[in-house]
Amino acid sequence: MNIGFIGLGTMGKAMASNLVKAGFSVKVWNRSQAPVEALVALGAKSAQSPADFGDVEVLVSMLADDATVQQVLVDDGAIASLKTGALHINMATVSLKLAQSLDAQHQQQGLGYIGAPVLGRVDVAEAGKLNILAAGKAALLEKAEPLFAVLGAKTWVFGESPAQANVVKLAANFCLASAIETMGEASALVRGHGGSGQAFLDMLTNTVFAAPAYKTYGNLIAHEQYQPAGFKLSLGLKDVRLALEAGEAGKVPMPFASTMKDNFLDAMAHGDGELDWAALATVAARRAGLS
Amino acid sequence: MNIGFIGLGTMGKAMASNLVKAGFSVKVWNRSQAPVEALVALGAKSAQSPADFGDVEVLVSMLADDATVQQVLVDDGAIASLKTGALHINMATVSLKLAQSLDAQHQQQGLGYIGAPVLGRVDVAEAGKLNILAAGKAALLEKAEPLFAVLGAKTWVFGESPAQANVVKLAANFCLASAIETMGEASALVRGHGGSGQAFLDMLTNTVFAAPAYKTYGNLIAHEQYQPAGFKLSLGLKDVRLALEAGEAGKVPMPFASTMKDNFLDAMAHGDGELDWAALATVAARRAGLS
Amino acid sequence: MNIGFIGLGTMGKAMASNLVKAGFSVKVWNRSQAPVEALVALGAKSAQSPADFGDVEVLVSMLADDATVQQVLVDDGAIASLKTGALHINMATVSLKLAQSLDAQHQQQGLGYIGAPVLGRVDVAEAGKLNILAAGKAALLEKAEPLFAVLGAKTWVFGESPAQANVVKLAANFCLASAIETMGEASALVRGHGGSGQAFLDMLTNTVFAAPAYKTYGNLIAHEQYQPAGFKLSLGLKDVRLALEAGEAGKVPMPFASTMKDNFLDAMAHGDGELDWAALATVAARRAGLS
Amino acid sequence: MNIGFIGLGTMGKAMASNLVKAGFSVKVWNRSQAPVEALVALGAKSAQSPADFGDVEVLVSMLADDATVQQVLVDDGAIASLKTGALHINMATVSLKLAQSLDAQHQQQGLGYIGAPVLGRVDVAEAGKLNILAAGKAALLEKAEPLFAVLGAKTWVFGESPAQANVVKLAANFCLASAIETMGEASALVRGHGGSGQAFLDMLTNTVFAAPAYKTYGNLIAHEQYQPAGFKLSLGLKDVRLALEAGEAGKVPMPFASTMKDNFLDAMAHGDGELDWAALATVAARRAGLS
Repeated sequence: MNIGFIGLGTMGKAMASNLVKAGFSVKVWNRSQAPVEALVALGAKSAQSPADFGDVEVLVSMLADDATVQQVLVDDGAIASLKTGALHINMATVSLKLAQSLDAQHQQQGLGYIGAPVLGRVDVAEAGKLNILAAGKAALLEKAEPLFAVLGAKTWVFGESPAQANVVKLAANFCLASAIETMGEASALVRGHGGSGQAFLDMLTNTVFAAPAYKTYGNLIAHEQYQPAGFKLSLGLKDVRLALEAGEAGKVPMPFASTMKDNFLDAMAHGDGELDWAALATVAARRAGLS
Repeated sequence: MNIGFIGLGTMGKAMASNLVKAGFSVKVWNRSQAPVEALVALGAKSAQSPADFGDVEVLVSMLADDATVQQVLVDDGAIASLKTGALHINMATVSLKLAQSLDAQHQQQGLGYIGAPVLGRVDVAEAGKLNILAAGKAALLEKAEPLFAVLGAKTWVFGESPAQANVVKLAANFCLASAIETMGEASALVRGHGGSGQAFLDMLTNTVFAAPAYKTYGNLIAHEQYQPAGFKLSLGLKDVRLALEAGEAGKVPMPFASTMKDNFLDAMAHGDGELDWAALATVAARRAGLS
Repeated sequence: MNIGFIGLGTMGKAMASNLVKAGFSVKVWNRSQAPVEALVALGAKSAQSPADFGDVEVLVSMLADDATVQQVLVDDGAIASLKTGALHINMATVSLKLAQSLDAQHQQQGLGYIGAPVLGRVDVAEAGKLNILAAGKAALLEKAEPLFAVLGAKTWVFGESPAQANVVKLAANFCLASAIETMGEASALVRGHGGSGQAFLDMLTNTVFAAPAYKTYGNLIAHEQYQPAGFKLSLGLKDVRLALEAGEAGKVPMPFASTMKDNFLDAMAHGDGELDWAALATVAARRAGLS
Repeated sequence: MNIGFIGLGTMGKAMASNLVKAGFSVKVWNRSQAPVEALVALGAKSAQSPADFGDVEVLVSMLADDATVQQVLVDDGAIASLKTGALHINMATVSLKLAQSLDAQHQQQGLGYIGAPVLGRVDVAEAGKLNILAAGKAALLEKAEPLFAVLGAKTWVFGESPAQANVVKLAANFCLASAIETMGEASALVRGHGGSGQAFLDMLTNTVFAAPAYKTYGNLIAHEQYQPAGFKLSLGLKDVRLALEAGEAGKVPMPFASTMKDNFLDAMAHGDGELDWAALATVAARRAGLS
């Protein structure tokens, strides 16, 4: 099966590499050239442009955000270049609105389309252990499964409408942000009474909250280790905004998300946009007058 | 070592039983008589009144709330009956204010005092696997450790001031409530776009949120199984209020806790106070017009 | 008609003075002596103690808060000293809980009781132009009206249950705090885009928001004139907390009140408790990184 | 002076009529024809299309929202049709983003541009008593003043950058929504304790909150008179969203606005989008279980 792969950022590069290593014929494109060369060294082919995917059966894309997806896939012609019947698997975290618009465009063009954002950071992608949140027609999901088996530990299916997967991804990211805010407020409470936030988080994340999300971010918060950013706070704000926009589209009040957006803005206004989004936890501490 | 034990509710009964089985000499008191008889059948002695603990070295109490603690331990004379140098281990979840007041009273009376609330529901107490959140003077904690070893899987120490343990417990319960609210809003978002809340929560609690707190409550929310109540919603409201009061005492803004208190009230106003506090999740759904 | 008057703070002194000047026979008590002497100079009599009001037909009290009301009226025996059939008019802003408890106590003792907190600051009290928010039995209100006519511009009646007036007063103070927070956020928005908060507030409070509440606080906010405090921020926090407690008692979610409590705590944590409560508006500005 | 006027909705029709009556030569365009004919009957001229304003010195536009402004003024060529040096006065409530984009476009085209949204409903517009919130270069404002003098009671100037006026307008509308929410929560508190929301609002809006905004909406809330809608709830949601977007652009947390957005969504989810936005007040009541 000929596969196209667009978007070789840290996540995309790891994923495309795994596909090449698994024996797929992969043709890649990326805005900057270095990761392309790395992939070619592994055995991939290089596309001439984003619009050079007329010969693939399946196009996988892993781009940064709505603007990039719109630019590369739509404006620069990637989708338009696909042949009738080809399948596009969009693994980026995008807005519900863009997800719905892409779905419509693929239908009009006679293309298959799957929304398949992932849970997991770069090390998980490298290990091929991502959790893949997928939605699309059953036949298309079946076609995609050999690729998903290489990229992920498990594929979770959320219905036939591709945008459903994007809603789930936004909901999951909302939960991650909420875990950070929760630990931030709880730590501030403990510290505000002279206790140790670190001791509290150590207990919390090794007992009832012994989950990857809490361990990862609890550890960063406990040690105030916000650099280098695994995921920038400014991007966390964006994801919470996308969840709120999806909430508004569905008439779903989300007061935790609203509260967090304000706290993200507080952090941004204090110059913390480039820190890891775990730094959202510093807002509760600062408001309580804790250093 | 002669031990007293006051408060044989479902938690206290399981804990006292474990102490008896471990070979301690235990004298018990409870407002209702049935659990006293069950303990006596195991080998415990029965106290004549709450004020009949002048012969114990260590008094353990596990009472329901501030009012009961005040009534039984203070007004009915349990603490006053202790001999100088005795140690009282208070394992109830109480307000910061009461915890501080009890600490002062014990000091005045020449008694040792440890705050030691626990994490874990009845089955965990029965298995002797509680997480014990303890604070008090090091020598007292050392004296208590043989009991803690029987009651719990691990003792987490949070400083020399007994009330610190109560702050930590309130912070932890706040985190549990926050997990419920988070799953409630996220599920509403997914459902508001036609997706399955159950499928979403199944994925969430088996991936990045695979922690006991999320699994327990995620499962209840997914199946809308709010009866019988493991922990009543009205008590959840109380605990969030206690966290907010502790926050106010420490000048710590806690917007998530504030939001939840309003949602708990929404649930109370709709007649859900007797349901399990996981029913907090129904508020987000109702507000979004989901059945 | 023999009148007793307890509580000669700035408000109470102005009110008692007006009653004396209007020709009533007034017997006064106050913790500190200076205002008593001032009233005596106007023609009032001085009580020996808070419990020296057995000879009055109507006792008016204007005390600072719950604790003082409890101390002076209950513990120190003022209410107990009243003769059967006497009327007590409580004009203080107290909690709903205390208001209900006082109502019950008066009923048991065969006394009349009216809750009658007021709207208006000291200058309004001096001018006898207060708005009196009253609740109580119709016959009692009729008996009180000659006094109200001296003290206030208008008496607003809110039912037969005295505590109703206290709920209305807490609701009104909540509205005042909300006006401050609203102007704080709106000004921060304008300033965050380089505009003048002062010009904005000037327009706002002279057009659609040309009301005393907005003019008074809008002016203080526009000129950042938070000292001397007309009403301390720490007392504003207390009143919002009382509104929230009343909300909880009635199962009424009040998200604006919750948000404000967190912002009041933010201000307290930053050392602003002694400023005028209009300084609540500085929280929004600080969070936005505005100086 | 030759004036163009685009947008003859209820507000625009009243404003354009006043300009004609004041003796200005006015050329009008509107999507639907009826109001055009009404204006022509008063003495106005009718434009052939939105792009038929090459002969005016000043173009006034009063369109409904961002989408309509973009369609009529930009896509359909109204701005492009203006001659170099002409002045465009945009009196619509638009987003900060569109306001900034329009400003840039006018500069590129060598046109004058003023942002001048208004405060006041139709009756105020008819009476020529609007409050005009204006921003733009001083010379342009001077040129516009003869028109403003006809349309409004007063012109409030907010700087040289036209978009500043739009921020002020969004801030003012946020304050109006906040007044509604405040009255909604306060009334719910009073009603939740058996009091009369109507009596409370009557007192409130005739004492410290005796301002047009509170009187207008307090009256609608007190009598639950949400139809016909003076301003639709769905448009109120839009305006609060625009304020939040402006807040995000300026890194200004606005927790009251966030809370309101969630409450607007609650109202929308319960089918109240077509009611007057005063119906926002019903959310607090419903959440408290009040009928």
